[in-house]
Amino acid sequence: MNAHKGRLACHRPDPARVGAVHLTFLGTSAGTPTRTRNVTSQVLTLDHGGVWMLDAGEGTQHQLMKAGISARRIERILVTHLHGDHCYGLPGLLALIAIHERREPVTLIGPRGLAEFIATITRLSDLTLKFNVVVQEHGGSGEWVAEHGWHITARPLVHRIACSGYVLQEPERAGLFHPERARALGLPEGRAWGRLQRGETVNGIAPAQVCDPPRPGRKLVLLGDTCDAGAIIAAGSDCDLLVCEATYTTERAAKAHEWGHLTAAETGALAHAMRARALAITHFSSRYTTMPGALDALSKEAADACPDTVVFTADDLLTLDLALDGRVALRA
Amino acid sequence: MNAHKGRLACHRPDPARVGAVHLTFLGTSAGTPTRTRNVTSQVLTLDHGGVWMLDAGEGTQHQLMKAGISARRIERILVTHLHGDHCYGLPGLLALIAIHERREPVTLIGPRGLAEFIATITRLSDLTLKFNVVVQEHGGSGEWVAEHGWHITARPLVHRIACSGYVLQEPERAGLFHPERARALGLPEGRAWGRLQRGETVNGIAPAQVCDPPRPGRKLVLLGDTCDAGAIIAAGSDCDLLVCEATYTTERAAKAHEWGHLTAAETGALAHAMRARALAITHFSSRYTTMPGALDALSKEAADACPDTVVFTADDLLTLDLALDGRVALRA
Repeated sequence: MNAHKGRLACHRPDPARVGAVHLTFLGTSAGTPTRTRNVTSQVLTLDHGGVWMLDAGEGTQHQLMKAGISARRIERILVTHLHGDHCYGLPGLLALIAIHERREPVTLIGPRGLAEFIATITRLSDLTLKFNVVVQEHGGSGEWVAEHGWHITARPLVHRIACSGYVLQEPERAGLFHPERARALGLPEGRAWGRLQRGETVNGIAPAQVCDPPRPGRKLVLLGDTCDAGAIIAAGSDCDLLVCEATYTTERAAKAHEWGHLTAAETGALAHAMRARALAITHFSSRYTTMPGALDALSKEAADACPDTVVFTADDLLTLDLALDGRVALRA
Repeated sequence: MNAHKGRLACHRPDPARVGAVHLTFLGTSAGTPTRTRNVTSQVLTLDHGGVWMLDAGEGTQHQLMKAGISARRIERILVTHLHGDHCYGLPGLLALIAIHERREPVTLIGPRGLAEFIATITRLSDLTLKFNVVVQEHGGSGEWVAEHGWHITARPLVHRIACSGYVLQEPERAGLFHPERARALGLPEGRAWGRLQRGETVNGIAPAQVCDPPRPGRKLVLLGDTCDAGAIIAAGSDCDLLVCEATYTTERAAKAHEWGHLTAAETGALAHAMRARALAITHFSSRYTTMPGALDALSKEAADACPDTVVFTADDLLTLDLALDGRVALRA
């Protein structure tokens, strides 16, 4: 889908902004930072210009700076769980957002305890924020309607502490507008085209006569740490992109499960069960990131278990583009 | 003083370890990290092998890794105040110390609220530590006897929240042992030499007959953020090294004072009032770290105000060596 067609899509509140959604990995190391990888955070740049974040391990503000993404645009942070490598960067991130003079609210969704975490640290460190921090705690499951009609669904994941994964569903998008059909029906270019694109009937011509049927929105599934993600498979099924931990190879399955993690093969099997079109594996044990060929082994394990899924191996500052048709590609 | 003479010093519990104390700057940026400087932390490697830290802004564990200093050796953390750029790295640092399997206690000294900060975060993030964290809160002033006889003195600094500076005083060190004097008194090399060095009288020979008089221990003064450090001048006087913020140049004095900070000229004047032999300025506003020549201007302002003091300008991962005689030099 090219940008021109995108600009002509019907019923968009801001057609000029239609385009790819970008997912940037800010940290891909499990548990502790390494010399080349930081702890977990992912950031999603949506086509309305807003930025959502999943988790914020320590150093996330530093990584955000390296990625060149403005902290001021962060409107929403989803927190999977409160292990330090997923949340110790939150206070510094809020301070950074404040420095960048955001005035609009920032909404945090996460497990019970998140509000106390934020409130205690901001109080003790005398952190004054000129924007509202809205904390929406949940017990593992939840549904929210977010900015621009996106739906967020949380489902619990088995881990050592309360942990969730999130399904992000873009609303149905309007079908393409066909100028030649409008002209054939006697409507030259003008304001009437815009009214048709916004769903109004004009001069007896219904939108369906000049627009394609609505197109499904994109669907992403972003998971926290887990050794069993069964409870989110139904909600996440047929997603365009699943992002999931693959902390160890099968050789270390016992250790993986002891610590509440998946092997790469299990992550691949999860993608297969979810019928994910694409899978990005992340959250690698530090033992692999300096071992030659180890990341290839993790990728191969995952890919072998989901032959119908495109598999990406995350790295810090790597960006995936999720096109309007749901296809995922490495940013050129 | 060379290493050989050091090894012969009298009354040392572990003479083999006698040598320079090293101060490494892990972060030198005020308020927020920049692309080249992290937020505040300094780490002191003492000659008994222990490591003490002053403050731990976010990303301190990352910087410690870059500096090649083992987290396992951290036995003491002094916290000046609870602004985020000085303490948001503490939880991750404790997690790193745990990963490195320290079993001995870690003692934290800091302002009221520090214990709640640590306790709340470790509880909510389910951080299990196999070492004791001993938190010693104070109301601005305090005195402690620490490892290997070092004395720590806290004094309050004027800032926007409760803040302190710390004076670290090494105990008096034994004078040099003179083998030729011992031989002249009829004592050949042997166990008796060791007993004399440990302060015992042997065969009627007193230690003072073969050892120089005791030498004063080294003295460091490490300050937190402040616009008025008058209350620590007496305790810190005649120190070998003062480390102090110099957030702005005089041109921005109004802003400095509004935010509770010193100008570089005021920092130099403080070093002069304290009769510090050396001064290291740090905690620079991010506006200066990318401005050509700006750091030189800060250094010059400071140096002009303390003509009898050697002035160093801190940078991330810069190390100062504090020799046995108290002289400070850049690590070669």
